[in-house]
Amino acid sequence: MQGLMMDFPLTLQHPFQRATTLFRRREIVTQTDDGLHRYTYADWGKRVMQLANALKQAGTEDGDRIATFGWNTYRHFELYYAVPCMGAVLHTLNIRLFAEQLVYIVNDAQDKIIFVDGDLVPVLEKLSDQMPTVKLYVIMGDAPNATGKLQPSIDYETFIGSQPTSYTWPTLDENTAAAMCYTSGTTGNPKGVVYSHRSIYLHSMGIGMADGMALAERDSLLPIVPMFHANAWGGPHAAAMVGARVVFPGRFMDPRKVAHLMIDEKVTVAAGVPTIWIGMVPVVEREGLKFPHLRAIYCGGSAVPRALIENLERNNMNIVHAWGMTETSPLASLCNLRAYQEEWSQEEKFRVRAKQGTMLPGVEFRVVNIDSGQEVPWDNTSYGELQVRGPWIARMYYHDEESSRTKFADGWLRTGDVATVDEDGIVQLVDRTKDLVKSGGEWISSVELEGLIMGHPKVLEACVIAIPDAKWSERPLACVVAKPEFEGKVTKEDIIEFLRPQVAKWWLPDDVVFIDAVPKTSVGKFDKKVLRSRFEAYSTAHD
Amino acid sequence: MQGLMMDFPLTLQHPFQRATTLFRRREIVTQTDDGLHRYTYADWGKRVMQLANALKQAGTEDGDRIATFGWNTYRHFELYYAVPCMGAVLHTLNIRLFAEQLVYIVNDAQDKIIFVDGDLVPVLEKLSDQMPTVKLYVIMGDAPNATGKLQPSIDYETFIGSQPTSYTWPTLDENTAAAMCYTSGTTGNPKGVVYSHRSIYLHSMGIGMADGMALAERDSLLPIVPMFHANAWGGPHAAAMVGARVVFPGRFMDPRKVAHLMIDEKVTVAAGVPTIWIGMVPVVEREGLKFPHLRAIYCGGSAVPRALIENLERNNMNIVHAWGMTETSPLASLCNLRAYQEEWSQEEKFRVRAKQGTMLPGVEFRVVNIDSGQEVPWDNTSYGELQVRGPWIARMYYHDEESSRTKFADGWLRTGDVATVDEDGIVQLVDRTKDLVKSGGEWISSVELEGLIMGHPKVLEACVIAIPDAKWSERPLACVVAKPEFEGKVTKEDIIEFLRPQVAKWWLPDDVVFIDAVPKTSVGKFDKKVLRSRFEAYSTAHD
Repeated sequence: MQGLMMDFPLTLQHPFQRATTLFRRREIVTQTDDGLHRYTYADWGKRVMQLANALKQAGTEDGDRIATFGWNTYRHFELYYAVPCMGAVLHTLNIRLFAEQLVYIVNDAQDKIIFVDGDLVPVLEKLSDQMPTVKLYVIMGDAPNATGKLQPSIDYETFIGSQPTSYTWPTLDENTAAAMCYTSGTTGNPKGVVYSHRSIYLHSMGIGMADGMALAERDSLLPIVPMFHANAWGGPHAAAMVGARVVFPGRFMDPRKVAHLMIDEKVTVAAGVPTIWIGMVPVVEREGLKFPHLRAIYCGGSAVPRALIENLERNNMNIVHAWGMTETSPLASLCNLRAYQEEWSQEEKFRVRAKQGTMLPGVEFRVVNIDSGQEVPWDNTSYGELQVRGPWIARMYYHDEESSRTKFADGWLRTGDVATVDEDGIVQLVDRTKDLVKSGGEWISSVELEGLIMGHPKVLEACVIAIPDAKWSERPLACVVAKPEFEGKVTKEDIIEFLRPQVAKWWLPDDVVFIDAVPKTSVGKFDKKVLRSRFEAYSTAHD
Repeated sequence: MQGLMMDFPLTLQHPFQRATTLFRRREIVTQTDDGLHRYTYADWGKRVMQLANALKQAGTEDGDRIATFGWNTYRHFELYYAVPCMGAVLHTLNIRLFAEQLVYIVNDAQDKIIFVDGDLVPVLEKLSDQMPTVKLYVIMGDAPNATGKLQPSIDYETFIGSQPTSYTWPTLDENTAAAMCYTSGTTGNPKGVVYSHRSIYLHSMGIGMADGMALAERDSLLPIVPMFHANAWGGPHAAAMVGARVVFPGRFMDPRKVAHLMIDEKVTVAAGVPTIWIGMVPVVEREGLKFPHLRAIYCGGSAVPRALIENLERNNMNIVHAWGMTETSPLASLCNLRAYQEEWSQEEKFRVRAKQGTMLPGVEFRVVNIDSGQEVPWDNTSYGELQVRGPWIARMYYHDEESSRTKFADGWLRTGDVATVDEDGIVQLVDRTKDLVKSGGEWISSVELEGLIMGHPKVLEACVIAIPDAKWSERPLACVVAKPEFEGKVTKEDIIEFLRPQVAKWWLPDDVVFIDAVPKTSVGKFDKKVLRSRFEAYSTAHD
């Protein structure tokens, strides 16, 4: 027997309609070279429809991939809705990729138009020869350093300027592709994830849930996470659905500038990787900054070190640990405290808040022993690979049967993350499967060691990698960045002695090397591949 | 181009799995004759699966209608999940219906089993002769007043007791029917609404949204609204999804008893029709009760009088006006204050909070002029019939082509409610289309008059109906219930003079009659049909 409810497709046309009618007066703010650009959802809506008309006139057809190469701005937000609502697919290109990956991705997706921020035009000019599918470049804002080689091209405002401000959206099936994003995999070619209208819609509801990011009309959201990084974690899509005010940082990502933007624009919710917040703490403390409107920073992309949680808490800033990946839309879990944990001591709360937390409604998970393939017990100790499934989890990669076969099995996404689970299903990632250090047949968590080392008062960042070892197979090497004021004033022994009371003896790194900075991937994660190759020849003797 | 996300069906099996794993230690409390019954979601889950096994063994097949005739209890909550998760359809019968409606509904739905609370057995015993489709009665708890006529019957605990505590749910399409509920229409036969797994799932997410009821794991939810009234407004389903603690009142609905249950069990969220809260205010004030844990009362079913909002606010109780109907799952709109309204004066806030508010994500609406059929402008003044559509709105009635044709048109549900809309899409219901008073070619809102009269300090309840009038076609008659302490001490003139400065002269009721109580429908709404027939012969002369 079937239900007798309306067959109402879950498409982005619905949040678009909400934003432009119910929340028409709510503001969208963007930091630009000329100060702050402000307009309302009503203005935005008209321009979204002008953009759809312009795209239609430029020959865009259903399913065409329309790419962006830009910062977090109102124009990027216009593209977020215009492209999928008209039935095309928004492909957000990562502006920090290496040239060859970028070329690979544009060709793999067969992008037809690329929207590019003016200051980024020079990057594409060098590569446009190798992007034969691209028929048009639309330049957003001034491009003073451009040579004019990007052809044919048109200015964004000219492109949309003379178009009508209304557009009749086509009727779309909710499983229609809405957006795509390539994962910046550290091995092999980047892999395309294709989001559907349905998946983005449900993910937006998840973000709006009280036990999700609780995003609401009353919020002012600052997405620091780039709009090319898994849809800025879904914040902009969800903001339109619930009518939240949005504050875009533009290309100004310096922690001090971001901090002042948060204060001036009364930001209530911010989202970004740990690096930005690690960089912000000294600014906040030096300048004595206060964030009276901020209710939460949602942080993921890499494990949030406990020391960061404590440092922000000391400054009355509440950071919430989240976890996900491009393949999971990305929000999969969040570490909101459970009711019974609210009574706990600050110390115990910090311990929990350093975990990745509880899966959102819609995300099911299991943790599977890496060797045996059996599900591990929820005992807070046993670990294995985290696998997830749900309506906003990818089921395969675009054009990539082979990677899909290894990454997706029996209806589960194999995340490549190693996790433990407590008796209430609270998940803690201990490492990436490929970053675990296998010493004498036992596993050592590089992430746990990093988190502990970053708790040392003189340490800014730490990255632990496995180095080959004749006797133990692998041993941990700690690569440590001292805080600027302590450069040259912290020693290997300081770190080891700091760790000694906190871990089993055989977990202690064999050596500690001091480096200037931890190399980062294009989305701000620690790039262990680079460190591994730098210390390839490194090996220590054991007695 | 299609998205490449998992085809993960939105069924109730997912929230069931969440509740019984992530939230296994969270509590479910029920008020019983013997005090409070307590167990956890883990206990609940085992019994849900025992129940599914028992139903299977009793011959339940996919799509079979399994009915309930009971109060809000943990057993009812077990049925809420066992029946749909196994692929059958839960049919919640309204225990307050007239016998002939009840018989009609059971036969229309072809219920196969009825689960009945012990104290309600006598009601069914009188009717079982007329319910040939029912093959089994399962009695929940003691039935001291039963004659034993209900046959075949079995005790609930005996029914499930020896069954295994695990069950392998079948794979269900998300559009499978999960539950059904008949509207207690005031005209014609009751009409069946058939909810799907998908609609209940999405509605649960909506309830969990920060701008919905914000239901979260940290909440303790008290559903006063009966579980046969549009799934208790969705609270129990959503509670399992988010892991909220639930407190069921059982058959003890007296305002004083409910108030003390709320305090003792640290209830954070309660949901029920205005009547219960109107009745609670004097108790709260007399006993000086405090509700330190309560964050919100969600109230709908009938318009919430502004005086009630003010009276509760004075006692530090936050009531949130909600609107919906059986056909809308039911939550369609909620009056959470918008960001810009938070700055307003208390007076202005009360004015807004008396409105039905903002539609939830997923609910689209329009307001259509009753005469012309054109959409009315959002000017806070123009009014018309409210029409809605969305993924948790019914598209037709069960077995009732004719009613479906008049009630559903062009993909919209015609709600029968008359509304105005302000420039931000905030909806206010001014009346039911059939309750508007048409005087001299103009409409008078009976609901608005009632709300104003109920603001009079000596008035408990007021109901305004149209009476025939030779000159004006119809004129308003106010039927007023005085507070017990003011019985006989409030006059027609008091009411009219109280209204005079607040409404246009021609809106003033021609007469005011004092009655003992406003007759209520089986779900607690004012039953104007009864009043109309009581005052049928009533008519006033005009000069």
